[in-house]
Amino acid sequence: MTKISFASDYTTGAHPKVLEALIRTNLEPLSGYGTDCYTKSAQEKIKKACDTQDIDVFLLTGGTQTNALMISTVLAPFEGVISAESGHIGNHEAGAVEYTGHKVLPLPQKEGKLSADDLSSYLAGFYTDENHEHMVFPGMVYISHPTEYGTLYTREELSALSRVCRSYHIPLFLDGARLGYGLASKASDMTLSDIAALCDMFYIGGTKMGALCGEAAVFHKEYTPKQFMTQVKQHGAMLAKGRLLGVQFDALFTDNLYAEIGAHAIMMAEKLKALFSEKGYRFFIDSPTNQQFIILENEEIKRLQNHVTFSYWEKADETHTVVRFATSWSTTEDDLKILSEIL
Amino acid sequence: MTKISFASDYTTGAHPKVLEALIRTNLEPLSGYGTDCYTKSAQEKIKKACDTQDIDVFLLTGGTQTNALMISTVLAPFEGVISAESGHIGNHEAGAVEYTGHKVLPLPQKEGKLSADDLSSYLAGFYTDENHEHMVFPGMVYISHPTEYGTLYTREELSALSRVCRSYHIPLFLDGARLGYGLASKASDMTLSDIAALCDMFYIGGTKMGALCGEAAVFHKEYTPKQFMTQVKQHGAMLAKGRLLGVQFDALFTDNLYAEIGAHAIMMAEKLKALFSEKGYRFFIDSPTNQQFIILENEEIKRLQNHVTFSYWEKADETHTVVRFATSWSTTEDDLKILSEIL
Amino acid sequence: MTKISFASDYTTGAHPKVLEALIRTNLEPLSGYGTDCYTKSAQEKIKKACDTQDIDVFLLTGGTQTNALMISTVLAPFEGVISAESGHIGNHEAGAVEYTGHKVLPLPQKEGKLSADDLSSYLAGFYTDENHEHMVFPGMVYISHPTEYGTLYTREELSALSRVCRSYHIPLFLDGARLGYGLASKASDMTLSDIAALCDMFYIGGTKMGALCGEAAVFHKEYTPKQFMTQVKQHGAMLAKGRLLGVQFDALFTDNLYAEIGAHAIMMAEKLKALFSEKGYRFFIDSPTNQQFIILENEEIKRLQNHVTFSYWEKADETHTVVRFATSWSTTEDDLKILSEIL
Amino acid sequence: MTKISFASDYTTGAHPKVLEALIRTNLEPLSGYGTDCYTKSAQEKIKKACDTQDIDVFLLTGGTQTNALMISTVLAPFEGVISAESGHIGNHEAGAVEYTGHKVLPLPQKEGKLSADDLSSYLAGFYTDENHEHMVFPGMVYISHPTEYGTLYTREELSALSRVCRSYHIPLFLDGARLGYGLASKASDMTLSDIAALCDMFYIGGTKMGALCGEAAVFHKEYTPKQFMTQVKQHGAMLAKGRLLGVQFDALFTDNLYAEIGAHAIMMAEKLKALFSEKGYRFFIDSPTNQQFIILENEEIKRLQNHVTFSYWEKADETHTVVRFATSWSTTEDDLKILSEIL
Repeated sequence: MTKISFASDYTTGAHPKVLEALIRTNLEPLSGYGTDCYTKSAQEKIKKACDTQDIDVFLLTGGTQTNALMISTVLAPFEGVISAESGHIGNHEAGAVEYTGHKVLPLPQKEGKLSADDLSSYLAGFYTDENHEHMVFPGMVYISHPTEYGTLYTREELSALSRVCRSYHIPLFLDGARLGYGLASKASDMTLSDIAALCDMFYIGGTKMGALCGEAAVFHKEYTPKQFMTQVKQHGAMLAKGRLLGVQFDALFTDNLYAEIGAHAIMMAEKLKALFSEKGYRFFIDSPTNQQFIILENEEIKRLQNHVTFSYWEKADETHTVVRFATSWSTTEDDLKILSEIL
Repeated sequence: MTKISFASDYTTGAHPKVLEALIRTNLEPLSGYGTDCYTKSAQEKIKKACDTQDIDVFLLTGGTQTNALMISTVLAPFEGVISAESGHIGNHEAGAVEYTGHKVLPLPQKEGKLSADDLSSYLAGFYTDENHEHMVFPGMVYISHPTEYGTLYTREELSALSRVCRSYHIPLFLDGARLGYGLASKASDMTLSDIAALCDMFYIGGTKMGALCGEAAVFHKEYTPKQFMTQVKQHGAMLAKGRLLGVQFDALFTDNLYAEIGAHAIMMAEKLKALFSEKGYRFFIDSPTNQQFIILENEEIKRLQNHVTFSYWEKADETHTVVRFATSWSTTEDDLKILSEIL
Repeated sequence: MTKISFASDYTTGAHPKVLEALIRTNLEPLSGYGTDCYTKSAQEKIKKACDTQDIDVFLLTGGTQTNALMISTVLAPFEGVISAESGHIGNHEAGAVEYTGHKVLPLPQKEGKLSADDLSSYLAGFYTDENHEHMVFPGMVYISHPTEYGTLYTREELSALSRVCRSYHIPLFLDGARLGYGLASKASDMTLSDIAALCDMFYIGGTKMGALCGEAAVFHKEYTPKQFMTQVKQHGAMLAKGRLLGVQFDALFTDNLYAEIGAHAIMMAEKLKALFSEKGYRFFIDSPTNQQFIILENEEIKRLQNHVTFSYWEKADETHTVVRFATSWSTTEDDLKILSEIL
Repeated sequence: MTKISFASDYTTGAHPKVLEALIRTNLEPLSGYGTDCYTKSAQEKIKKACDTQDIDVFLLTGGTQTNALMISTVLAPFEGVISAESGHIGNHEAGAVEYTGHKVLPLPQKEGKLSADDLSSYLAGFYTDENHEHMVFPGMVYISHPTEYGTLYTREELSALSRVCRSYHIPLFLDGARLGYGLASKASDMTLSDIAALCDMFYIGGTKMGALCGEAAVFHKEYTPKQFMTQVKQHGAMLAKGRLLGVQFDALFTDNLYAEIGAHAIMMAEKLKALFSEKGYRFFIDSPTNQQFIILENEEIKRLQNHVTFSYWEKADETHTVVRFATSWSTTEDDLKILSEIL
């Protein structure tokens, strides 16, 4: 028997419609390096989905790459990026931001989220510190949405962060590796257009939303880096066959596919959550998105691993571990049924 | 009428067999970040094709990325990389090597090639210069094969470079973005196994050889960087769905596909060369591989561009321009027939 | 009336004996870039003072420069440096370590000190984390002695840190910008030779100990970076007139001058501490070295600033501020007498 | 008998008047990090000597440091700096510019100089190259004056370079490590004020002009980097005792001292040149400044080295070597007399 997999939202390949687009366009000769018609079409569709023409959209390959590139090309050399101490860039990207020469400035987190109050205090404190010219200047605020714990900012919370950032003239950057799951969550009170209005730069994740690879970087035009594609090349992030990204994002933003993928995974996650809940399992955090964090006894982990794959998250205590179950476009009702039998 | 395309070897998508492998494996849940079974299989097949187990193989996404990563993770901070002045890393990678903090040290080129004599003189001169501690130390030699002009090193030439490098204990690095076309050329007197024996590190190009993306980085074990995959992550070069690279390279190295792709493109290039030759066109250089460089009158360029796409290479003189026609796995007899009618 | 100054230990120029050495040697033609006889003499005297020949000594210009250089040339690219969260490198060096591409990994501090227990837990946790290959590897431990709060590690504490570091094969690096004040403190139970035995790399501060500029970087030979002086040049840290550093350090390590400077400043600090204590002032921390941290009412700060200079440290609460009074080789009994009258 | 020294212009310490200023101010308590009154005074005097208030002046420690800092803080990340292929930054600074992530773009040199024609062709060619978005953008032009060969730009030559730079909106940067010797040369037709008008950024060398260390970086205000002193700190280039630089430059720009030092060394160089000339020695180049390049038989080098120190420059042929004799503020008539006897 094959094990069912809830290990992550990137264990299977491309959503069938994305794959179909790759197949359909495979023999068309297209120009390279992101100048092809599908990339242009994807850029236009994303602008439309964001409900504004005042943005620039670029297609990149992976999440860490996109974070490092967007952060380092917007920051001045003497600036760092503020992040909740649980932020992905500060913990699980192998120091990719520091590799570009910039410091990640950690602030406290609550359920993976940064509060406007903490941000505001930090910024006020920085500029009143008489020694701040010997310190790293705060040049950007990074948040992830959904966060690393699957949680979501409310529109009010995001608006508050946006106001603080804009009053200090620093951009608010949202890491949307799993943005589609956030938008589809029942707990969400924001659309993609709201995100685009409140953030100054963000990316729309593709890899974890049904693409083989690909993230769409979005900048409000005032923050678009000069010669961005040359910088993409300089960082080794440019694909000769830029079509690979263009065709996939064009498919994801055709006929509502991106939203559908999010909706399906959220529906599966709700059912999975209910399953664990009914069986009396403890949750590490109450996540409204496609990642569910369960506290398991170490012995039970061994038992479950015979039948299902899931991810190690962190040690809870000597005898318990936090694990993650994730759903995606490829999670099926059958997967849940089998899981139910296993638990 | 659609224009036929000889613009490059990356204008079409994936070779049908590569695409088929992506389709076939699409629904299999696989672990991420290059730990999947197809990546492992591809690594083993490449080792076998190289006829040695004394190498480490890693799959990366693009050529500039692979060059920058392999160079910067092997060089010491005070070292630079020697390259023919026509080398791709020194001219058309937007300063990606310098971005990692290392200098490209240019030496003269002849038909895109570096000579062992020039290399030897440079190295001898460096170490006898009394001021060399204030200079960038030569820490690696970079060559491309085929070169940027489509030319090839002979076994004797490569052996000579290899001997010089090894006598100075610095690695010889071969950029094989188009390696398959080199190996398939009638002018080639080397196999992949010869390349693997003479070079200390090299990469086997996928993007320009029928993959959607992907390059296979190969290190002799003594040069394999410590924690290489962490450094790949740090450079933003790691794919969550590492399968995308694994599946493609597994297909390319199954049933001789990589060699077949090379052979087909070379056959097409030979015919294309004959076509131009018969019609009395002038060649910029005598290339034995899939890239052919023709000198055209500027007026004729305009005429041809109505029917066929090709690439600008460089200005020849006020009224002439060097252009490139490239063949690939997707070039057909029909393409050549149409071209023949156009010329 | 000129104001007396306790603003820092770098407000006056060179100790008279250091200045005298510069004057005495001024007309001697000496070779450049640290190859002069005074630099060599200083290096030998420092080795002797450290009681070992198994070290390499290099003279650099300033503290931030020395930290960034020593850290970045010893760390592998994928490694970061652990520091107490109050560490100078993480807060007041404008991101100089991150500029070199490395992350500062903060751990909790107590009175400016890092505990061996916290360090040990962190390291154990890192290597058992299943995702640690996506994280910054801990490659070094940074401590300052005296710390940013003027406090000192005991021999037992330093030994414990040393044991942890050596069991993980990572170097313990001690920032000794004010090392002489630490060695001279009554609270100190260590000699320079103890420091040299327990740490794997450290620097002996000159700038804050009576030199115009200069810090002596010391590496146990196993950690000496390859081609270190070339890397010093590459970082823009090499002086053409290396004699400036050589002559000063040669003077500082002649006839016990370095120890005398430390002893004088500590004696002055003890008296200053007593003064504040007698007058009922509150101390922010109990510092046994030349920096004393006092909590003042904001109104009183204004009053005192008319007569004496001292440094802003940090805000204590709405109506109080922590300030720093520092003594040095140039602090006089008269300064203290005037201070006493002011308080 | 002590050997006389013509090894370089940095073999002796500080000019007596510079040293005297350090002695006189030694006990004054001054604020740190370049905020002291002497630094301010030096900055004002330099502005006056440059005959403009539209510049910002900062004091740094050494030449390589100043080049790397000024270049890297002005260039955009995707830009490189054009330099004659003999430029110091491209050859003898250990890759310090590349360490900051930027490429040095070499153009041909004639007697160490870059021509406006070559520059103009290069820039025109760059922007018409269809692939230039994959190349390093030319973002600055670097020249040295005097050059590495002691030669000088004429006002006409510098004006021509300036016009080209300004028509492309890129700054012209002049490395003035030995600027004072250039200004004092009989071959010079420019004043410091001319330099300041024609260049967009430059530095006035101190180390080789009688200071113990120190270079004055000058930016036209439109090119002054944001938060420059924070970036100086970030590069490890800030001195706690900034007074060391301030006092020295204040002295150098008091009572015409900088010009006097230049004039003395040039007078000595003229005499030295005449000496070699009279004795029939061959010059490698006709230098009008304080560095003289002589071609010596290898055997003669050994003989001379018994009595006088000078510098190895480069190999001329199998039996001859180019050597450099340099004069400075400390060269005396006696030195020349002894040299005359030796030759």
